[in-house]
Amino acid sequence: MGLQTLHSPPMHKTLIALAALTAASPALPQASAAIAAGKAQPSPLAPSEIVAQAPKADWTGIAASDLLVMDLAPDAKGKPRRVVIQLMPAPFSQGWIGNIRKLAAARFWDGTAVNRVQDNYVVQWGDPDAEDKVKAKALPEGLAVMSESDYNTIVRESLDRKRRSETSRMANGPDLGPDAYARFTGHHLGWPVAAEVIEEGASRLWPVHCYGMVGVGRDLSPNTGSGAELYVVIGHAPRHLDRNIALVGRVIEGIEHLSSLPRGKGALGFYDLAQGDERTGIVSVRLGGEVKGLPAYEYLSTESGSFAKYADARANRRDAFFIRPADGADICNIPVPVRKAK
Amino acid sequence: MGLQTLHSPPMHKTLIALAALTAASPALPQASAAIAAGKAQPSPLAPSEIVAQAPKADWTGIAASDLLVMDLAPDAKGKPRRVVIQLMPAPFSQGWIGNIRKLAAARFWDGTAVNRVQDNYVVQWGDPDAEDKVKAKALPEGLAVMSESDYNTIVRESLDRKRRSETSRMANGPDLGPDAYARFTGHHLGWPVAAEVIEEGASRLWPVHCYGMVGVGRDLSPNTGSGAELYVVIGHAPRHLDRNIALVGRVIEGIEHLSSLPRGKGALGFYDLAQGDERTGIVSVRLGGEVKGLPAYEYLSTESGSFAKYADARANRRDAFFIRPADGADICNIPVPVRKAK
Repeated sequence: MGLQTLHSPPMHKTLIALAALTAASPALPQASAAIAAGKAQPSPLAPSEIVAQAPKADWTGIAASDLLVMDLAPDAKGKPRRVVIQLMPAPFSQGWIGNIRKLAAARFWDGTAVNRVQDNYVVQWGDPDAEDKVKAKALPEGLAVMSESDYNTIVRESLDRKRRSETSRMANGPDLGPDAYARFTGHHLGWPVAAEVIEEGASRLWPVHCYGMVGVGRDLSPNTGSGAELYVVIGHAPRHLDRNIALVGRVIEGIEHLSSLPRGKGALGFYDLAQGDERTGIVSVRLGGEVKGLPAYEYLSTESGSFAKYADARANRRDAFFIRPADGADICNIPVPVRKAK
Repeated sequence: MGLQTLHSPPMHKTLIALAALTAASPALPQASAAIAAGKAQPSPLAPSEIVAQAPKADWTGIAASDLLVMDLAPDAKGKPRRVVIQLMPAPFSQGWIGNIRKLAAARFWDGTAVNRVQDNYVVQWGDPDAEDKVKAKALPEGLAVMSESDYNTIVRESLDRKRRSETSRMANGPDLGPDAYARFTGHHLGWPVAAEVIEEGASRLWPVHCYGMVGVGRDLSPNTGSGAELYVVIGHAPRHLDRNIALVGRVIEGIEHLSSLPRGKGALGFYDLAQGDERTGIVSVRLGGEVKGLPAYEYLSTESGSFAKYADARANRRDAFFIRPADGADICNIPVPVRKAK
């Protein structure tokens, strides 16, 4: 496990060999040829098969400078636990992300800890003494103070003029169905987003809280958080947080080191040492460019034909296990495939 | 932790005391009185506060005979790990649930194990040797053989005539917004459901795959599973499984004993002993009526006024932390509150 894995249903174990075989097989014969030969049509490709067959050109590299590498204290068996986070590209949340770069450069998180694990919600980390004026670690100089207006990223392009490249749900591609939280949802430059039209020729896009997304803890408004306290979603997408908290990235490897941590016994899942909870220590957090031997990662371009096919297959599962395709999918059920570069 | 907890956002820790205080306080003064006195209006109630203030009459007891109690092997510190599952009421999935009652009565699961933990997806348990004809445990006599047509529960009532009691999204209550997977979603007798109108005066309802829902593992169609291999959702709702697999219940206590288990290193998250994975053993699975000292549980009636207020507050967070209410919520973001009976 590690990279975002593609799901298969709760099938029995004997089916796995079959699924693996199909995924590894070369392109299936064209349906038309099969029909011409009087043979049965091949089973439609599963989403994982479409991803496996996507040409190299449909994958986009992720710069090491856009990665945040968090090494947790080793597990009970002494095994290392590394979590790799991809930071969002401009123009999303750049103020907070600038702060995060400064915090990593200043080694702020080294020696801090995971402080909160709430089931079906979030894992949160940072300085456990942040709110104790005497014990709190000093923040580095020069952090930006952001405001709520920065939660929204305005992209001054028409949704009508440039549908395809903005989001797949605003696209000529598969119709993924409506969303309870926003007028439009889809993908933009590799990220799950929602959008609204604000005037003729202009739309506003914002990133959404899917599983694995990383955001910035804060107090009550107008405090929007410095970036020193971060969290990752480990449950059903808490979309009500969209545009209420800054999102800055997503976990692309090692999320299981966070999502499988013991849940906190305190209120809201905060670890309560008095009840026997033990925090998981953070050894170091570094920007990817500082980490030797880090693999190169790439994501399936959300503007590619392969992604459109993948999204359609996620919304209409036609592979053998399924009896009834859903004819739709919510944005968080179309995770962007990420892999180590080949 | 234990019972389904209501979420608060990734706030800083100092806010918890405030939140706890508000939740525990008696009913806030009426807004009209506050306005008349020239005072500021009180902050609207958070969903957790609405639940805390719901009158006893709005809670519905869960019969012990509808509970399935699974005791896992103690954890590394020797602490017990109990998972309590509520089985769905008639007419949902009764064939499979009948099988599950027979399997529990026959002690079928005693000595079996958790065999699969896939991040952001499912935990699956049963006989690890189920597909080995020599080693497989014998199933009890008389299990029903179900078919795919049983995935759908037809409720022969008009959606128009009896909207309120069927689902909150089909209701006079809060409009929770559209769904990517079904024409209607909401709650029915305490369970999250989707629905379609099949003819004048008749609608078809089916349960949906939210976090914590329990279903029946199966092979390829027409095999629909006996009920001997079960799974629970531990990630973003895999709604594409709706009407493709039988749902039979939900975890109402102790889900953290499953969701925080180490992820499996094998394909699809199955535990691979060769790679060092260790299965978590199941000591026993009993129907609730057989377990001495089991607490009584109750859920907030989805047909109650308190539930309508709670659902509205989940869809429109107006409590102090929030800047921008979502004006909508997907069905799996309105978990049905369950508690030990008071």
